Amino acid sequence: MKIVILGGVAAGAKAAAKTRRLLPDAIIDLYTDDRYISYSACGLPYYIQGNFSDYRTLLVRSPEEFEAQGVKIHLRCKAIKILPDTNQVLINNLDENRAFLVEYDKLVIATGARPIIPQIENVDLKNVFTVRHIEDGIAIREQMQKSNHATIIGSGYIGLELLEAFVENNIKVTLVEFAPKIAPFFDDDISNIVQEQLKSISDDRFEIMTSEFVTCFIPDENGNVKIVKTGTGKQFTTDMVVLCTGVRPNVEFAREAGIAIGETGAIKVNKHMRTNFPNIYACGDCAEKNLLISNTKVWIPLGSTANKEGRVAAINLSGGDEDFEGVLGSSVVRCLSLTMSMTGLNEKNALKLGLHPVSSVVTKNDKVGYMPDVNNITLKLTADKITGLLLGGQAVGAGDADKRINALTAALLGRLTVEEFTKNDLTYAPPYAPTIDPLLNAAQILLEKIKQC
Amino acid sequence: MKIVILGGVAAGAKAAAKTRRLLPDAIIDLYTDDRYISYSACGLPYYIQGNFSDYRTLLVRSPEEFEAQGVKIHLRCKAIKILPDTNQVLINNLDENRAFLVEYDKLVIATGARPIIPQIENVDLKNVFTVRHIEDGIAIREQMQKSNHATIIGSGYIGLELLEAFVENNIKVTLVEFAPKIAPFFDDDISNIVQEQLKSISDDRFEIMTSEFVTCFIPDENGNVKIVKTGTGKQFTTDMVVLCTGVRPNVEFAREAGIAIGETGAIKVNKHMRTNFPNIYACGDCAEKNLLISNTKVWIPLGSTANKEGRVAAINLSGGDEDFEGVLGSSVVRCLSLTMSMTGLNEKNALKLGLHPVSSVVTKNDKVGYMPDVNNITLKLTADKITGLLLGGQAVGAGDADKRINALTAALLGRLTVEEFTKNDLTYAPPYAPTIDPLLNAAQILLEKIKQC
Repeated sequence: MKIVILGGVAAGAKAAAKTRRLLPDAIIDLYTDDRYISYSACGLPYYIQGNFSDYRTLLVRSPEEFEAQGVKIHLRCKAIKILPDTNQVLINNLDENRAFLVEYDKLVIATGARPIIPQIENVDLKNVFTVRHIEDGIAIREQMQKSNHATIIGSGYIGLELLEAFVENNIKVTLVEFAPKIAPFFDDDISNIVQEQLKSISDDRFEIMTSEFVTCFIPDENGNVKIVKTGTGKQFTTDMVVLCTGVRPNVEFAREAGIAIGETGAIKVNKHMRTNFPNIYACGDCAEKNLLISNTKVWIPLGSTANKEGRVAAINLSGGDEDFEGVLGSSVVRCLSLTMSMTGLNEKNALKLGLHPVSSVVTKNDKVGYMPDVNNITLKLTADKITGLLLGGQAVGAGDADKRINALTAALLGRLTVEEFTKNDLTYAPPYAPTIDPLLNAAQILLEKIKQC
Repeated sequence: MKIVILGGVAAGAKAAAKTRRLLPDAIIDLYTDDRYISYSACGLPYYIQGNFSDYRTLLVRSPEEFEAQGVKIHLRCKAIKILPDTNQVLINNLDENRAFLVEYDKLVIATGARPIIPQIENVDLKNVFTVRHIEDGIAIREQMQKSNHATIIGSGYIGLELLEAFVENNIKVTLVEFAPKIAPFFDDDISNIVQEQLKSISDDRFEIMTSEFVTCFIPDENGNVKIVKTGTGKQFTTDMVVLCTGVRPNVEFAREAGIAIGETGAIKVNKHMRTNFPNIYACGDCAEKNLLISNTKVWIPLGSTANKEGRVAAINLSGGDEDFEGVLGSSVVRCLSLTMSMTGLNEKNALKLGLHPVSSVVTKNDKVGYMPDVNNITLKLTADKITGLLLGGQAVGAGDADKRINALTAALLGRLTVEEFTKNDLTYAPPYAPTIDPLLNAAQILLEKIKQC
């Protein structure tokens, strides 16, 4: 049995390792256009920040370890064409610039995603970066150490994580967001709070521009980015720019091969992580996901999901039977002292799906008020006013927002109503929660609102 | 309408405030043998520790605030006899030592619990304390400031919280536990880990004696406790002793009046928090609770539950209709750098109920290993091997154990199986969790175990 895996960051590496355990006799080849495999891409902002000094800390498992277990690793080998009729893949060795064909019995596509490059004049200047690969992290960290000012374009997860990284290194930052609000993964009211709270802790270390876009970079004499010009006529000097304007799935070569692409633009898969071809699987950031709450398709590329999908793909291609049911859309991001965490549907996404969201918002202490490290959290809880079912939650604050969101996930998984959830028994002691947890406050208020609907 | 409330710490104070809002015209009288009402008894260890300097910080609402809203507060007035046939209560004014009768239309019993005093010779010496009332906290803190060594008897929640309080004040501590393990609320294997971890951070600041009991206190010339003698023949000098050997519900006068007492020794109540008398309610630490997982009766006295029960009692006696379904047995306690958190049934309690528990135990990082503040947690997850239903979880460690336990509670509430729970989508980012959360590791291992049963 010949297994070919395309891509090797999270899903691909996991699929390779798991398949190796399940099929000791199979021939497993992993091809990636990357120089590294099996690394924590989510850790790049923390490497840049300097939480650890050696980028190799990000490497989970080396090519040598894979090879020792009989998984052949082919770095810098980019899949350019799949031939599903003949069970072959055309691969280009990037270093030698020479294409070659490989055969497979089972194929796993785990080619991930790549940064979207916004249409900005001179976007390819030196010191204009994206964050995806180990090399990006190394280059950004090196440039940061020589810089006084950095520009971040986009205020999603990576933009916010890099804001922290730069500020903690005493680099002045200008964050430019095209949308009217930062943290666009939240509803507007929660984004507003993020923005206010970030501004209140800025202390002139960073500036946030919203409803703003960059039109042009102007270089210095060495071809390094020097001046940033915006659509509203502002301009400022900078020593480096990081484009954090989102990612898109690497699926073009799959589409060309007739592999079905879903409505989200990522590869369509069933619960077995199988594509429309019985012997071709897709997993990780290149694959579409099922949102459990609404049973609708979403594309939420996350390392934790990629790991689970890689595992499930491996089990099924090895003859097992395991379902990956989908995701709840749970995520968390830290920016300086703020935690932003969410799960399920927010109001704007619920509305798009034709649901009838109603929400409660509370701002409360995260523990008893007399504890020395007490902090606020703002919690928004959303339910459907027709069914009473919980739809999701969003939380932000210097307090323990993430605990409350994680306490919601199983309620979404179990399809609890708000009324059922108000009966929940969360842990209580002064260092951990107020007598009545903010999550239960929010649920109680939401229940009253639903009753009045 | 005359409402009489007996007891005023958490449940009684909550019931009074809520009834006031619901029945603006009712006459509400609250009688308590205490000198204070409406206080955070759970905060006493943190007052003792010195997290805040004024004991009044513990007071949630003053008698004057209650009186201003028309709730009459009668301090130092102890209920000694209920006459359900005539709807009267005999009350003794402790300061004047004069009994008097009051009439009620609806009665709320919220008399709480009191410390169990172990049979130790000279247990009534000076500087031998229990922790229940504000005065206890004041006296312990005063004595602590003059002490070099303290003895804590009992290693439940309060014993562990006081251990932290004393150690943080540079008082040497000897903790004496009768059972073979400390933290007896856990299964033995988790208690072992608590004990090992506490010993590893002791640094000669405290000593733990297990399978040991105190037989005798010997006083100095002023009648202060001076020497502690144990059942195995040890003796040591100390400057103060705190008895943390558990509490029992204050229900004797209720039993005498014919109010039904449950199998746990606390007052039997229905979901409306009503006793066997239609116009008598009981709530808080004096009342029995329903354990949701097994639908069996338990007595778990906690401030968070007392608050909820006081609210529900008030709604129902005011003519409303609200159920308090019960508890999951969720709790958390901190002792120095260790968090101990649990919910649901542990193995030993599940066995007592005739269930068929099977468990997984994992010790993992609480966040990605390269984060500077990464710490371990040990997580034990228990399910029933016949039904596959989750029964409970226990967690201990310097890492974020409490988040994982709270992420379990809604799964217990929603009666999820382990298999369903393995599909959960918890938040992930390097500062918050490893790629695969320890809770999902534990669930996956538990699922494999159940499949093999």
